[in-house]
Amino acid sequence: MKPTINVGIIGFGTVGCGALQILQENGEAIAMKVGSEIKVKRIADIDIERKRPIEVDKGMLTTDAYEIINDPEIDIVVELIGGVKPAGKFIMDAIKSGKHIVSANKELIAREGHDLLLEAGERKQDFFFEASVGGGIPIIRPLKQCLAGNRIDEVIGIVNGTTNYILTKMAQEGRSFDEALAQAQSLGYAETDPTNDIEGHDPAFKIAILASIAFNSTVNVEDVYHEGITKLTQQDISYARDLGYCVKLLAIAKLRDGAMEIRVHPAFISESHPLASVNNVYNAIYVKGNAVGDVMFYGQGAGPMAAGSAVVGDIIEVARDINSNATGRICCTCFEDKPVLSMDDVSAKYYLRMHTADKPGVLARIASIFGDNEVSIASVLQKSRDEDGGEAEIVWITHEVKERNFRTALKEIEDLPVVAKVSNWIRVED
Amino acid sequence: MKPTINVGIIGFGTVGCGALQILQENGEAIAMKVGSEIKVKRIADIDIERKRPIEVDKGMLTTDAYEIINDPEIDIVVELIGGVKPAGKFIMDAIKSGKHIVSANKELIAREGHDLLLEAGERKQDFFFEASVGGGIPIIRPLKQCLAGNRIDEVIGIVNGTTNYILTKMAQEGRSFDEALAQAQSLGYAETDPTNDIEGHDPAFKIAILASIAFNSTVNVEDVYHEGITKLTQQDISYARDLGYCVKLLAIAKLRDGAMEIRVHPAFISESHPLASVNNVYNAIYVKGNAVGDVMFYGQGAGPMAAGSAVVGDIIEVARDINSNATGRICCTCFEDKPVLSMDDVSAKYYLRMHTADKPGVLARIASIFGDNEVSIASVLQKSRDEDGGEAEIVWITHEVKERNFRTALKEIEDLPVVAKVSNWIRVED
Repeated sequence: MKPTINVGIIGFGTVGCGALQILQENGEAIAMKVGSEIKVKRIADIDIERKRPIEVDKGMLTTDAYEIINDPEIDIVVELIGGVKPAGKFIMDAIKSGKHIVSANKELIAREGHDLLLEAGERKQDFFFEASVGGGIPIIRPLKQCLAGNRIDEVIGIVNGTTNYILTKMAQEGRSFDEALAQAQSLGYAETDPTNDIEGHDPAFKIAILASIAFNSTVNVEDVYHEGITKLTQQDISYARDLGYCVKLLAIAKLRDGAMEIRVHPAFISESHPLASVNNVYNAIYVKGNAVGDVMFYGQGAGPMAAGSAVVGDIIEVARDINSNATGRICCTCFEDKPVLSMDDVSAKYYLRMHTADKPGVLARIASIFGDNEVSIASVLQKSRDEDGGEAEIVWITHEVKERNFRTALKEIEDLPVVAKVSNWIRVED
Repeated sequence: MKPTINVGIIGFGTVGCGALQILQENGEAIAMKVGSEIKVKRIADIDIERKRPIEVDKGMLTTDAYEIINDPEIDIVVELIGGVKPAGKFIMDAIKSGKHIVSANKELIAREGHDLLLEAGERKQDFFFEASVGGGIPIIRPLKQCLAGNRIDEVIGIVNGTTNYILTKMAQEGRSFDEALAQAQSLGYAETDPTNDIEGHDPAFKIAILASIAFNSTVNVEDVYHEGITKLTQQDISYARDLGYCVKLLAIAKLRDGAMEIRVHPAFISESHPLASVNNVYNAIYVKGNAVGDVMFYGQGAGPMAAGSAVVGDIIEVARDINSNATGRICCTCFEDKPVLSMDDVSAKYYLRMHTADKPGVLARIASIFGDNEVSIASVLQKSRDEDGGEAEIVWITHEVKERNFRTALKEIEDLPVVAKVSNWIRVED
C-alpha cells in the first residue's frame, strides 16, 4: 500500500470545490477505507485569483495543467473543466503520462470517451466518470458491475435537473414555460443561456454514455435524436393530467432486435411509473434488465457536493485499485457495435392535439388518414368551445406505431382544409 | 486471464435456479465482460431428485457440499441455502479451502458476517453478498464504492416485499391485515408461516447489514429493535392518509452523535417522501450522505431472477478480481465500533390514537401529562362519535421527543380513569 496517493485537479469550479471539501471533511474515514491518505497535491485553473468557497494553500494552485499532467508524484488526474477542448487533450496526455483519470465531463465522454478509455485500458490505467451522468447518483458503476449479469433492455432517465424543475413548476403551479424558466434562472438552476438544457443537448450526451454501457456498444452521439421542452404548453400538461400522465423530458435508450433506439424528448409518462414522481431538480434513471426486472436510481443530479460525491467515489476506487495493483481492472465494455435506429424506425405511442372545423365528418376524415397509415387510435377526446369561433379541439392518443407512419399521417392531416392547426404532438411512454 | 472460472453452488432452490438461468442465457456477454467463461461445475443440495424449472446434467448434482468445498478446480462457492447452520460452517470451510464466496444469506451475514469477512480478507479472498439485501437492487456495492466518499447519516429501507404488499393492499383496497395477508399467501408472496416477515425479523437482519456498511461499524443483530405490522388497523391507515402520510414497515439506521439508531417498525411517512410511492412487493433503500444528499435505490426485492441478478453480479466481480489478481480488494469496512442506542434514547415523532370519556377536561388532563414529560404536541384531532356510547376518539401527533419520555407519558395516560383505551401508537418519520 502506498502511504499517500496524490491527486491533481484540473478545473477549480464548483465541482472541484465540492470534491476538495469532501476529501477534507471525510478524509479520515476515506483513508481507513483505502489504506492510504488521499492528498490533493495540485489544482490547475485558468483563474487562480477568484475567491472560492473553500480555502486552499496558494502554492497548490497553478494556471498550467501540465504542471499536474507531468508531475511524476501525481497518481490521479481529476478533470473538471468540461467541454471537449482542451479537456480531451489534457486527459489523453495525462493517460500517456501514466495517470489514472477521473472525469465528470459528459460531453467529452460522450464524444471521445471510447478512444480515451481504450488508451487507458491498454495501459492498465483506470478511467472513471461516475459524475458525468446523474450527479451523485450511482449509475455507471451499478450498470458496469452490479447489473453486469443482465442483458439491459431499457434505460430511461430524467437526467437534466433544470428542465425537470421547469416541468415540475409548470405542472404543479400552472406556470408557463417562460415563467418557470425565469424562476429556474433566478434560483441558479438554469444558466443565463439555457440552450444546452432546454434544447436537450445535455441529456443527449448523458443517454449516449448510459446506452454505450448498458448495451456494451459504442454510440455516436450525433446519432442521438434530441428535442427540448420549449414547445410544451399548459394545455398539453393539463391534458396529460386528465389522461393519467405526467410530462417529463426523458432520455430513452432501448434495445430493439439488436439495434439501439436512443432519443431525448418530452414524453407523457404514466402517473404510476416510478419516474413520474421524480420532481424538481431531482434526477432518476430507470433500468430494465432481463434478470433484475426494473430498478431505479434516484437522487440529486447536480450541485457541487452531489457531483463531488461521485468524483470522490471514483478517486477512492482508483486508490483501491492502485493499492491492489489492479488498475485497469474494468475498462471499456463496448465489445459490440450495434446500429442506432433512425427515428423513422422507432416505435412509440403519440399524443396529438389539433384544432379543426367543428362540423360533421371531420373526425371521420382524420381517422381514416390514421387508418390508411396503420396508425391505430387508443383514445380520442373532442371538445367544442364557443370561444374558439366554431373550432373544435381534438386530442388523440395512438397505439404503438412506427414514427414514419405517424409522421406521414400527420403531414396528410395537416394538409386537410378542415384542420386549422396541429397544436402539438408528444410521444407517450407507459 | 483464466480461460474458465469454475463456480460451485450450494443450495439449489429458486435463487440458485435463477442464477443458473442467467449464467446460461447471458453467458456469452458475461464472458466478454470478464474475459473468461464462467462455468457452474457443481451444484449441491439435500434434495437432488426434485424437478427444477431449469435442466441440468445429473452428474453436476451432489448431496455433499464438501464435494464443492474441497474441489480444487472450483474458484467460487455460491452459498444459497440460507440460515446460520450449516451455511456458516460451509462458508468458513470454503474460505479456508481457498474459495471466494458469494452469498445471499441475510441472517448469516447479519450474525456472523464480520468474522467470515475478516477471514476471507486476511486470505485476500473475495466475499460478496449483494443479494442479501433488496434482492436485485444494487445497494451494498454502491454504499461500499460509489458513496464511499460520504459520511452516511441515514439509511431507511422498505426491504421486505411481503409486508409492503400487505400494507399496499390495506391502503389501496381497504383490506384488513388478515385479508391482505391471506391474499399475499395465495399469490406466493407470503409463506405459510409468515412470522419472519410480518414480525420484522427479516428486515432486522437486512438493516443490520446495511448499517454495518453505512457506518463502518460492526452491528450486533440482537441490538436491532424490531416490531412487525400485525397491530396495524384500517383506522390507523385512514388517519395516516387524512394527515398526509403513508404507513410503511421501515428499516431505519441513523447516525446520532457517533452512535447508531437501528430499528424496524411500522411508521407514518410523509406522502411526499420518495419511499411513500414504493408499493406492492417492490423494495427501496433511501440513503442520506453528507455529500451526496439523498439518493434512493428502487427495485424488486425478491424473486429468483432479481436475486439471481445480484448473485451473478457478485460472481462477475469475483471473476474480474481473479483475472486482475486482486481478490480481497475490498473486504470488511467495519473499522469502527459504534454503540447502538437503546430505544429509550431514540428520538422520534409519534402518532397516538386513544378512546376517552367524552366530557370536559379530558383533553387538558392528557395534554398536561404530555407537558410534564416534555412531549410537545404537533397536532391533535378529536372525534366524538355517537356509536361509541359517549366515548371520544383522540388522535395526537407529537413533535420529536425521546422515546423514554413518550413511553412514560403513555403509561401515565393509560392509567387515567377517563382513558378507556390506547388503541395504537406508531412512530412518524418525515
